[in-house]
Amino acid sequence: MTIDLDRLLRPRSIAVVGASQNPTALGTNALATLMSYDYTGDLYPIHPTHAEVKGLRAYPSVRDAPAGIDLVVVAVAAPRVAGVIEDCGAAGVPFAVVLTSGFGEVSGGAALQADLVEVARRSGVRLVGPNSLGFLNQSDGVAAGFGVGMPGRSRPQTGGLAIVSQSGGMGLSILNRATLSGLGVSSFVSTGNEADLTLVDFVEDAIDDPNTKVIVAYAETIRGADRLVEVGRRAARAGKPVIIAKIGATEAGGRAVQSHTGSMAGADLVFDAAFRAAGMVRVHDIEDMFDLATFLLRGRVPAGNRVAVVTQSGGGGAWLADTIERAGMVLAPASEELRAQLKAFVPDFGSVLNPVDLTASGISVEAFASVVKTLSDSGEYDAIVVLMPLLDVSEESIASIAAATTLPILGFSHWLPTPALRPRLGALEVPYVTSPARAARVLAAAARVGEAWRAPEPGPRPEPVPATATPAAAASDAATFELLASAGLPLAPWRQVTSSAEAVTAAQDLGFPVALKLSADGLIHKSDVGGVHLGLSDTDAVGAAWEAVAAVADGMGVPHRAIVQPMAPSGVEVIVGCTLDLIFGPVVMVGAGGIYAEVVRDVALRLAPINETEALAMVRELNIAPLFAGARGKPAADVEALATVVSRLSAAAVAWQDSIAEIDLNPVIVLPHGQGVRLVDAALVARVDNR
Amino acid sequence: MTIDLDRLLRPRSIAVVGASQNPTALGTNALATLMSYDYTGDLYPIHPTHAEVKGLRAYPSVRDAPAGIDLVVVAVAAPRVAGVIEDCGAAGVPFAVVLTSGFGEVSGGAALQADLVEVARRSGVRLVGPNSLGFLNQSDGVAAGFGVGMPGRSRPQTGGLAIVSQSGGMGLSILNRATLSGLGVSSFVSTGNEADLTLVDFVEDAIDDPNTKVIVAYAETIRGADRLVEVGRRAARAGKPVIIAKIGATEAGGRAVQSHTGSMAGADLVFDAAFRAAGMVRVHDIEDMFDLATFLLRGRVPAGNRVAVVTQSGGGGAWLADTIERAGMVLAPASEELRAQLKAFVPDFGSVLNPVDLTASGISVEAFASVVKTLSDSGEYDAIVVLMPLLDVSEESIASIAAATTLPILGFSHWLPTPALRPRLGALEVPYVTSPARAARVLAAAARVGEAWRAPEPGPRPEPVPATATPAAAASDAATFELLASAGLPLAPWRQVTSSAEAVTAAQDLGFPVALKLSADGLIHKSDVGGVHLGLSDTDAVGAAWEAVAAVADGMGVPHRAIVQPMAPSGVEVIVGCTLDLIFGPVVMVGAGGIYAEVVRDVALRLAPINETEALAMVRELNIAPLFAGARGKPAADVEALATVVSRLSAAAVAWQDSIAEIDLNPVIVLPHGQGVRLVDAALVARVDNR
Repeated sequence: MTIDLDRLLRPRSIAVVGASQNPTALGTNALATLMSYDYTGDLYPIHPTHAEVKGLRAYPSVRDAPAGIDLVVVAVAAPRVAGVIEDCGAAGVPFAVVLTSGFGEVSGGAALQADLVEVARRSGVRLVGPNSLGFLNQSDGVAAGFGVGMPGRSRPQTGGLAIVSQSGGMGLSILNRATLSGLGVSSFVSTGNEADLTLVDFVEDAIDDPNTKVIVAYAETIRGADRLVEVGRRAARAGKPVIIAKIGATEAGGRAVQSHTGSMAGADLVFDAAFRAAGMVRVHDIEDMFDLATFLLRGRVPAGNRVAVVTQSGGGGAWLADTIERAGMVLAPASEELRAQLKAFVPDFGSVLNPVDLTASGISVEAFASVVKTLSDSGEYDAIVVLMPLLDVSEESIASIAAATTLPILGFSHWLPTPALRPRLGALEVPYVTSPARAARVLAAAARVGEAWRAPEPGPRPEPVPATATPAAAASDAATFELLASAGLPLAPWRQVTSSAEAVTAAQDLGFPVALKLSADGLIHKSDVGGVHLGLSDTDAVGAAWEAVAAVADGMGVPHRAIVQPMAPSGVEVIVGCTLDLIFGPVVMVGAGGIYAEVVRDVALRLAPINETEALAMVRELNIAPLFAGARGKPAADVEALATVVSRLSAAAVAWQDSIAEIDLNPVIVLPHGQGVRLVDAALVARVDNR
Repeated sequence: MTIDLDRLLRPRSIAVVGASQNPTALGTNALATLMSYDYTGDLYPIHPTHAEVKGLRAYPSVRDAPAGIDLVVVAVAAPRVAGVIEDCGAAGVPFAVVLTSGFGEVSGGAALQADLVEVARRSGVRLVGPNSLGFLNQSDGVAAGFGVGMPGRSRPQTGGLAIVSQSGGMGLSILNRATLSGLGVSSFVSTGNEADLTLVDFVEDAIDDPNTKVIVAYAETIRGADRLVEVGRRAARAGKPVIIAKIGATEAGGRAVQSHTGSMAGADLVFDAAFRAAGMVRVHDIEDMFDLATFLLRGRVPAGNRVAVVTQSGGGGAWLADTIERAGMVLAPASEELRAQLKAFVPDFGSVLNPVDLTASGISVEAFASVVKTLSDSGEYDAIVVLMPLLDVSEESIASIAAATTLPILGFSHWLPTPALRPRLGALEVPYVTSPARAARVLAAAARVGEAWRAPEPGPRPEPVPATATPAAAASDAATFELLASAGLPLAPWRQVTSSAEAVTAAQDLGFPVALKLSADGLIHKSDVGGVHLGLSDTDAVGAAWEAVAAVADGMGVPHRAIVQPMAPSGVEVIVGCTLDLIFGPVVMVGAGGIYAEVVRDVALRLAPINETEALAMVRELNIAPLFAGARGKPAADVEALATVVSRLSAAAVAWQDSIAEIDLNPVIVLPHGQGVRLVDAALVARVDNR
């Protein structure tokens, strides 16, 4: 549910608890920051004994201050914070920013934080923090916190970038980069421990903020994960890119990973899947984050991945071409017609292919602008990169290049900007980068934003699966197979047998050749113990296999029990599975199967449930996707049937999440088109709640 | 052969041809550059009519100038250059730098360049260029060329970085980066079209230059490729890293390079193999090149991949940890003993794990230095990263951190350097980067340098293969198989048959089941035409297969001819092959086979020949290498036998390079250990010289 943060971020009156005549106190600093940013509302220092702080009348408690306070900034020792929040509640204050640290982020601080949350809930006060640096509303001149006004340093320009960060230090460093490069900022929020309000809440607020054009977020986890996808889609509809860095790849440890799917689906891939579902762009580096934000603040998003490069350096153009193509974009040559048009502006010893090379001798801003306009008008490209070194080029020249096209345009300079130009770099009409790899990464990421925005709405949710599962379904193969069949996921014909005679009869009924597999409760990796016998082509072979399996069972001290199945026809082998993520809940996975599954990590993941259209997109994303098309005279595979299985399993994962933690369908044989898929084996892991 | 470039790079006298009273002429600029750099030797302007240029006595020709000139800088129109070189020869001048463009790099200029080369050879003059910007010998104050003295801009500091670049523009931009960051430079050479002296020659000279510590090279192709490996190994023995960017890897990049310099872009993986053999580090970005050079100029190379991170920001430390581990380095936790030692310097609410977190409140230079020293003394790490924001930290503090360890140490700042510190960034005792990904890349690349330096000498070359091949060996399967057998590469038992009866007899002799394959001259992809029949288990099946193959042969208008072989036992399927690279000659490859070979690019390449030890290393580099170890109850594979095949094939590729352009052993079945490999099929492509 959307929270109205207006009184928090645009407060008409603010009290600062902890401001005092001690100039180095955190609260004094917070008050000074608000004043130095020319806060225009009412300001009330709160101090038990001082009558005045920094020339302002002080009050002993929030309860004693004038009524109608919108926001209280709290900077007192940790044990005293809850009392201040009670005061806020009594005075009808809706929001508090808690700068104080020493809560959940330190060992032994969890209880204090739980207590704080309880008091805040009871008092009807919404919290930022604790352990927050506060926030900066640059658009309206509210610097409520510590360090957010960058005291003693330059202030950021006012502009369209909203910064939301769980880490205060990393958030400030992003603000610092914006400031040093002249990139305009709308707001910065340090969400701290997120005992109440979360990063997702502030991202949502930024979507509604008319001053914000691009949102960058730094996260170490996601709280309020259930709203992430909804908020992300809202940002996409509003045309506001959300760029997110998520740190801590090994965070969701502690969960016993028993099955194959579990080990392949690292928690980090789940974040990838979640950000993707939300239409947010994940970045792995602060420079990439910043480059992409700078690019997208110009409001131009590529409609595809066709890139034209205009250069005056052959070497630089080639380097750009290499890295841009390596990043998955396409530098198609100009058409005959376009080349003829370009020749008017390009010297004979230049090139009208792509890169279009005006050469060092042909360089003039007019020629560049004409080439950019001609490329743009051709409709053959989705984005343009101009190599114009930041050497003698003026801001006006750069603006004239930007005005020559409405396409997304990126500047590349192999020369570093002059010291004079550097503070203006983020404000140039053409966003600039100074390395080919950064150019490639920013274009590829921006194209992903466009792709996410153009993606159709996901469509109807799949038909639900009855929530019939119990942990007992994981106990035996037969119970597992029956549960899966009830969800529309029938395994290949199978019989459970408990004697040699039963095994032979089953084989005869099912038809040779058959497979015979040990079936012991809780045993997932049957082949590891020598419990799998394949391609048994007659009764003698079945009898011998039974004896072998029985011996293994004796060795393990389990009953003589096995599953007999007809051998599967050949096809493309895949694995389909699902797991329960601690943060995002059920997740479905499809991946390459067979021997290569162990050596080549080739998986696609989605938050469950997904419909068949989404499942098909997921299948097509695998590296092995070309195998489904049928190479070298082999028939095309039934990917539609595979998509149905993936979608059904995703629905089952949701329906059964209270009982079942993991499901592995392995292997799944994808047969030729029209013949469906064969689910050869399956395993469940019951949910054990030890969180 | 090493060329003595002393008189070129440290000339006692220089003539400039093309210097005139026209201040904008290229030659005038070159003369002015030399003078502005305070060249201390003799300087002679050469002009047909002027008696004096820039206050120096001018001469009508090099022939008329005083004797003993070491170097002539040539800046006259292209058609006049050859005449000047003749003059140089007549005057006994050993070296000329040709700044003039309009030779091989422009269409129609190849003839002019060939003529120039011929004249230079005849005259005994060695050339830099044409189309060169000249060179800067910063150590000795010789700026011979155009732009190399960075006229009107700051000069670089004098230091240990040598820059060699085929592209003048890219080379100057590297020089610009060094200058703006205070990184010291020893020399810069723009090699231009390399009609004579090449990038490899100048890299070699830099190895011998006592002022040079690190060499960076920008290449669009490699000329003098036969000496690359030898020169690279010499650099490694001298302890001087060579960092190389080779552009033109992709189709678009290659297109740009060709339209730029007319150079031929070889297969990109072959360049990787060549640089690897030479112990050079390839980079794909100018920032990576620069970061790595800055790091290595401190003279510290990691002895392994164990990294310790010391931080005062939890978020920044986590981000570093994520990216460094993602780049393949290891952040192992500190041992119990080390943790106990670290506790003396780390606050209780910090962390003595790795990252070691001193927290924002615990920050002091002394604590950082103590932690760095303790980590260093422990012997548990090969490199240290310190997160100390470039905010208020002084150069002296940074120097004291560097002095606390002899390990390679890298600084990371999530804050950008202040404008005051930026020009000194490259000169800090601890090299700094400002993004986690850059930190990870520079550490990984530096570790690769150490690895290359520690690699044992390659050992003896493999036993040579007799050079018995003729193009006819590629004509038929039988001829191919026989040639391969002569090189110690016998195929699985095979018989060539020309009738149904012969096929049946062959199958009976070889033992069922067999394979029967159409054998037509020049037909490589037999299965594409339906010419392959596998698993024939009796005479009827062989007869039917023969009829089918005969029908295909009739359809293709080729004789009835087939190969019969016993079916291969199962094992790991690979492809082994070799090709003739235009630049580097014979190259050997091993890669994943089977259906995945088509969708997953998993190959290792080396310049041929290689011995069995090298071949084994190559096999172990494949992504599928874990399959050779025998997972899930399967036996370990005979990788030694595979290595023998790869080594033998590499020797054959060298011996047969005049006749054979490509050899494909596909598939090669690697059997369980001790059972060798099975070469199932092979194809040769005869060499056709159309270069």
